[in-house]
Amino acid sequence: MLDTDLSTPALVADLSALEFNLAHCAAALPGRRCRPHVKAHKTTGLARLQAAAGHDSFTCATPREVLGMARAGLGEDLLLANEVVDHDRLSAMAALLAGTARVTVAVDSEATVEAAARAGIAEVLVDVEVGLPRCGCAPGDAGRLADLARSRGLTVRGVMGYEGHVMAVQDRAERSAKVAAAMERLRIAHALVGGEVVSAGGTGTYDLHDEGTEVQAGSYLLMDTAYGRLGLPFHQALHVLATVVSVNERWAVCDAGLKSLAMDHGNPSIDGADVWFCSDEHVTYASADTTARPPKVGDRVLVTPAHVDPTMALHERLHLVRDGEVLDTLDIDLRGW
Amino acid sequence: MLDTDLSTPALVADLSALEFNLAHCAAALPGRRCRPHVKAHKTTGLARLQAAAGHDSFTCATPREVLGMARAGLGEDLLLANEVVDHDRLSAMAALLAGTARVTVAVDSEATVEAAARAGIAEVLVDVEVGLPRCGCAPGDAGRLADLARSRGLTVRGVMGYEGHVMAVQDRAERSAKVAAAMERLRIAHALVGGEVVSAGGTGTYDLHDEGTEVQAGSYLLMDTAYGRLGLPFHQALHVLATVVSVNERWAVCDAGLKSLAMDHGNPSIDGADVWFCSDEHVTYASADTTARPPKVGDRVLVTPAHVDPTMALHERLHLVRDGEVLDTLDIDLRGW
Repeated sequence: MLDTDLSTPALVADLSALEFNLAHCAAALPGRRCRPHVKAHKTTGLARLQAAAGHDSFTCATPREVLGMARAGLGEDLLLANEVVDHDRLSAMAALLAGTARVTVAVDSEATVEAAARAGIAEVLVDVEVGLPRCGCAPGDAGRLADLARSRGLTVRGVMGYEGHVMAVQDRAERSAKVAAAMERLRIAHALVGGEVVSAGGTGTYDLHDEGTEVQAGSYLLMDTAYGRLGLPFHQALHVLATVVSVNERWAVCDAGLKSLAMDHGNPSIDGADVWFCSDEHVTYASADTTARPPKVGDRVLVTPAHVDPTMALHERLHLVRDGEVLDTLDIDLRGW
Repeated sequence: MLDTDLSTPALVADLSALEFNLAHCAAALPGRRCRPHVKAHKTTGLARLQAAAGHDSFTCATPREVLGMARAGLGEDLLLANEVVDHDRLSAMAALLAGTARVTVAVDSEATVEAAARAGIAEVLVDVEVGLPRCGCAPGDAGRLADLARSRGLTVRGVMGYEGHVMAVQDRAERSAKVAAAMERLRIAHALVGGEVVSAGGTGTYDLHDEGTEVQAGSYLLMDTAYGRLGLPFHQALHVLATVVSVNERWAVCDAGLKSLAMDHGNPSIDGADVWFCSDEHVTYASADTTARPPKVGDRVLVTPAHVDPTMALHERLHLVRDGEVLDTLDIDLRGW
């Protein structure tokens, strides 16, 4: 990827690694066993590859992702795994129902049930808090919300719960035990709610969900250094290609920075180098290999982001690269809200 | 700002605070004593306000900022305070010279001088490393680079140096001493280089630069919680307006997250609340005021970012608000590279 003539910083994905990840996930979680999370890439061009690999149901985090996926012809079964009370946005999603898109929205309170019903949403999942302090009702309250939703004319397809607090647990046995505890909460809720869908999980727990009906994995497709530490079988596909713009005896500076690399999981990585810090438009780093040729101005360098999802949201385009050749350039067309 | 009907998350600026900041900076650093840094807002609509306040020379971090400012008619005196070796981008900026824009580019090496000359750039500043491990030549090397630039037909307007390592120093006396040490390095370089421009500084050191000819302040206009801790006279103008989407007895969740709030300076803040953590599209927080009404779904909340520059780069639009009314909406039109 270093020898393309792309202007930098440029977001690039190694197509061979991406295809490996697609194939591995499709084998482990075939068809609708995986409901790929669109928030991880915000790119209908990548969702199309996931659909071609057999996954034609998708998870979204924002109304814009839902609307964009539907417009792209990928609306077979879209789950907004997030609470929304914005009437205009709910109505825009409800209007899709008249077309070919199927839209299901998460609810976790009377207010979100009422907002969904008022906007003409047809189907919901009850979102259950399974240990991550974020959205989701208490398991014991799920039945009451399902009854309320049904009384308001909504179809309740089942339950969802995201064990996000478990994703970064390094030890697999500990991760597995924590998933089991989280899914026990979801099982209690499902018994109260009914429905055919039990949706949970993510890339870090993709192979620890025998019980649920589907896994909401997203990062597996492109990967990042945070997930890379878990020893998952997925390959690092995503990088930011940068150009060295300044060097001296002690450090080098390249032209990717914290406006092109999400920082919430910490600094990005550069193979064979120690990253010192990121500024708006720069990474300052030093070679960790004293036998390597020192960097010089104009060199290309691959910077690997610590967190894939928000890094994607920083860029307008993703270049798919194989053997130094840019084979395709995809618009990251689902950014925003 | 809480009572607008904006869809959320929405980036909002308090117009009264913004006008205060404009006026205070124009009084402290009138006219070209301040060369506002466009990277802090990436918005020609805000640059226009700065020009109206008397500052018609600007600092940019990327070629796209330079080109966009020129196209917006704000190209009176644009400094790209960054090293670029991309021939196409340098050429695009050089092509502006035939029009009304004046473009000066930072150089800190033979390679950047050659790249500027080859692309037809007319004017440069020698960028000097004054203590921040990033771009900039050693002070003692500045004269050689200036000579090289002049031999290649470039006009050398002077020197610049950014004491970014000093910006977050809390104690004003210590900050002042560190600025003095940094400016001693710039003075050495200037004696070797010549020229009429000595450009340095930022919001954190805006009133500690009696010697230089201009200050590259940017964040002062909108501010963030990191600069807010320095006790500067500027007011917090920038917030992300969010809607509460989920609550329980222990925490609340609003619909701004790390895709709408830059995280490199840490978590954002919410008045009267403890922010627990940010996810892609959520902030989880708890009220710190046990006497206040507990948050409920649908409430509006103002989230204050820890770092203004990369937060601006996450949004498409900025709403200017006074007394709950959106008076103007500006495109954040200089995003990208």
